[in-house]
Amino acid sequence: MDLVPRPLALTLGDPAGIGPDITLLAFQARLGETVPAFVLLGDPEVLAERSRLLGLSLKIEPVGDAREAIAAFGRALPVLPIAVPERVVAGQADSRAAPAVLGSIEQAVALTQSGATAAVVTNPISKASLYRAGFTFPGHTEFLAHLAGREPSDAVMMLAAGPLKVVPVTIHLPLKDVFGALSGALIVKTICITAQGLRRYFGIERPRIAVSGLNPHAGEGGSMGSEEIEMIAPAIAAAKAQGLDVTGPYPADTLFHAEARKTYDVAIAMYHDQGLIPFKTLAFNEGVNVTLGLPFIRTSPDHGTAFDIAGTGRANPRSLIEALRLAEKMHRNAEAQS
Amino acid sequence: MDLVPRPLALTLGDPAGIGPDITLLAFQARLGETVPAFVLLGDPEVLAERSRLLGLSLKIEPVGDAREAIAAFGRALPVLPIAVPERVVAGQADSRAAPAVLGSIEQAVALTQSGATAAVVTNPISKASLYRAGFTFPGHTEFLAHLAGREPSDAVMMLAAGPLKVVPVTIHLPLKDVFGALSGALIVKTICITAQGLRRYFGIERPRIAVSGLNPHAGEGGSMGSEEIEMIAPAIAAAKAQGLDVTGPYPADTLFHAEARKTYDVAIAMYHDQGLIPFKTLAFNEGVNVTLGLPFIRTSPDHGTAFDIAGTGRANPRSLIEALRLAEKMHRNAEAQS
Repeated sequence: MDLVPRPLALTLGDPAGIGPDITLLAFQARLGETVPAFVLLGDPEVLAERSRLLGLSLKIEPVGDAREAIAAFGRALPVLPIAVPERVVAGQADSRAAPAVLGSIEQAVALTQSGATAAVVTNPISKASLYRAGFTFPGHTEFLAHLAGREPSDAVMMLAAGPLKVVPVTIHLPLKDVFGALSGALIVKTICITAQGLRRYFGIERPRIAVSGLNPHAGEGGSMGSEEIEMIAPAIAAAKAQGLDVTGPYPADTLFHAEARKTYDVAIAMYHDQGLIPFKTLAFNEGVNVTLGLPFIRTSPDHGTAFDIAGTGRANPRSLIEALRLAEKMHRNAEAQS
Repeated sequence: MDLVPRPLALTLGDPAGIGPDITLLAFQARLGETVPAFVLLGDPEVLAERSRLLGLSLKIEPVGDAREAIAAFGRALPVLPIAVPERVVAGQADSRAAPAVLGSIEQAVALTQSGATAAVVTNPISKASLYRAGFTFPGHTEFLAHLAGREPSDAVMMLAAGPLKVVPVTIHLPLKDVFGALSGALIVKTICITAQGLRRYFGIERPRIAVSGLNPHAGEGGSMGSEEIEMIAPAIAAAKAQGLDVTGPYPADTLFHAEARKTYDVAIAMYHDQGLIPFKTLAFNEGVNVTLGLPFIRTSPDHGTAFDIAGTGRANPRSLIEALRLAEKMHRNAEAQS
C-alpha cells in the first residue's frame, strides 16, 4: 500500500486550448465531488490569467516539490512551475509554447517514474502546433512510449467509461493505411498488453476479451473480406493458446449494444473509428483515454484542445475529472497488488 | 388519399430462418398493438407447421387476391400461396427453396407496382443459400433495383429507428474495396436520393443532412487521409449547390452521441460499419432497413435469418413489426402528397 500519499502529475497541454480551463474547473469541482489531489506541471501565470478570464477566484500555489501538492490541494491549485515564455492568448495556437508543452510531459513522466507522483494525467495537446515546432511523434502516446524507452507498439490506447472499455489495434492512420499496419502479431501483442493492464490496474483477474472483425459482418465467412480468416481468427487462437479468455472475430456492428456489452470486459477493435464510434456514441463526455503497456500509469481526457471554446467558460471538465479519478483508482489497484 | 385500403406485401424470406417465426409473432402482436395489415407471399404449410412448432394457435388463411387480406387480417394470417417444393426444416438451410424465396420477392414487387399492395416488406434471406442456387446479386437491395429496372446505385439503404436515420454510401464490400467504390458522384447521388426519400416518405420538407468523413477525425485537415479534402467536401459542396441542407465532413466518432443527433435528420456514412456500428449500438432490436430510390416502398427488419434460433421461439419480431409500421407510415406520407 501507498504509505506516503502522492499526487497525480497533470500536464499543461496546449496552454491556448481548454487544458487550463478544465484544470481550473476540475480543481474547483473537488469541493462538491471527489477529485484526487494533483499537481499541475505548467506556468502558474497562465492558470492565474485563465482563472480571471473565466471569472473564477481560485488560488494558484507554486510548489517546489510534487509532494507538497497533497497538503496544498485543499486550499490552492498546486503548480510545479514551467514557464511559457510568450504570453498565451486563449484560443490562439502558438508554436512558441511547444518547449513548455513537451517539458511538462517529460517532467510528469520523470516524476512518476521516480515515484514522486502516482500517475501521469495529460491535458490535450495540439499536434499541429507541436509539428510546427519540430515535434516528430504521431501523438501523445508514441511520445510517452519514447520517454519510457519503449516501442510505439508497446503503448496501447484504451478508452474507458465505467464498465465500457475499448482498445483499437491501429489508431491515428488514414483508413487506407490500416491494411498495411494491421498484423496478426500486432493483434496478439495488443490483446496481451490489454489483458495485463486489466489485471494489474483494474483488478480483473481473467478479463473477457471480445475481438471484432475488420470487414462488414466480420467478413461473412470470407465473402466480404478475408482478414478475419487469414489474420484475426489465427491471432485470437494464438492469444487463447496463452491462456487468455479471447473470443471473436465478431461483427463490429453487433458488438456494442447493451446486451452484447455484458458479455465482455474489453472490446478490441481493428481501427480507430471502429472502436471510437461506439465508445463516443455511448460515452461522449465522460470517456477517459488510458495508455496501457508503459511502466507508469497514464490517463487523459478523450477530447482535443477545443481552441474555439478556450477561455469562454464552455469547456466541460467531466472527462478530465474522470481521467484523474481513474488514474488514482488504477494506482490504488496496482499498489494493492505490489 | 388511399380510398381502397391496401395491405403490405410481406415476403417469405428464407423459410428455414426466423422469417416464418417473426411473421407469425408479428401477426399475433396485432391483438395488443398496432400492426398494419399485411399479406404473406409464401407457403401456407410452412407457416402452419412453424406455428405448431412454436406452440401458437394461429389461423393461416390462403387468399386468392392481395386485397382480400384486409378483411381477413382480423381473423387469420392471410397468405398468397407460393409453394416451397421440399419440406422445410427450421434452422436447416436448403437451396431448393430458392425459387420460392425469389418468387416471393418478385411477386411482392409486382403486386406493389400494380397497386394491389401498398409496399414491399421483406423477411431475411440467406445469400449463401441463394448463391448456391445460382442467384448472382450481392443482396436483397440490388435484386430489388434490378426488378424495378434501376441501377444498383439507385437503391439507397437507410437504417431507421425513430428519429435516428443513417445511410451508408457503400455497403456490403470488404473494407479495402471501399476506396475504389467510393466516389464524389456516388456521394452526391446518395445524398440526393436520401433527401428526396425523406421529403416524399417521411414528410421532412428540407432534411438536415450530416455527412461523415472517411478517416479518423475526418482526416484532421489532411494529416490523416485526403479523401475528405479531395472527394467528400467537394461532394457536399455539389449537393449544397442543388439547394440541399448538407454539412460535413464530420468526424464519425463525434456524430452519433445524443447532442450531435439533434442537429440532423439523417447521417450519411461512407461505409457499412461506420454507419451500422452507431445505429445498432443505439437501436439493436427495433431498427428498420429502408430502401430509398426505387419506384416503390420497401422496408425490412435489419437482422439476418438467424438459423440458429429458427423454430425455437426465441426470435424477436420487434424489428419486423417496426418495418411493417414504417412501410405503412411511408405509404401514408406518400399518399398525402400525391
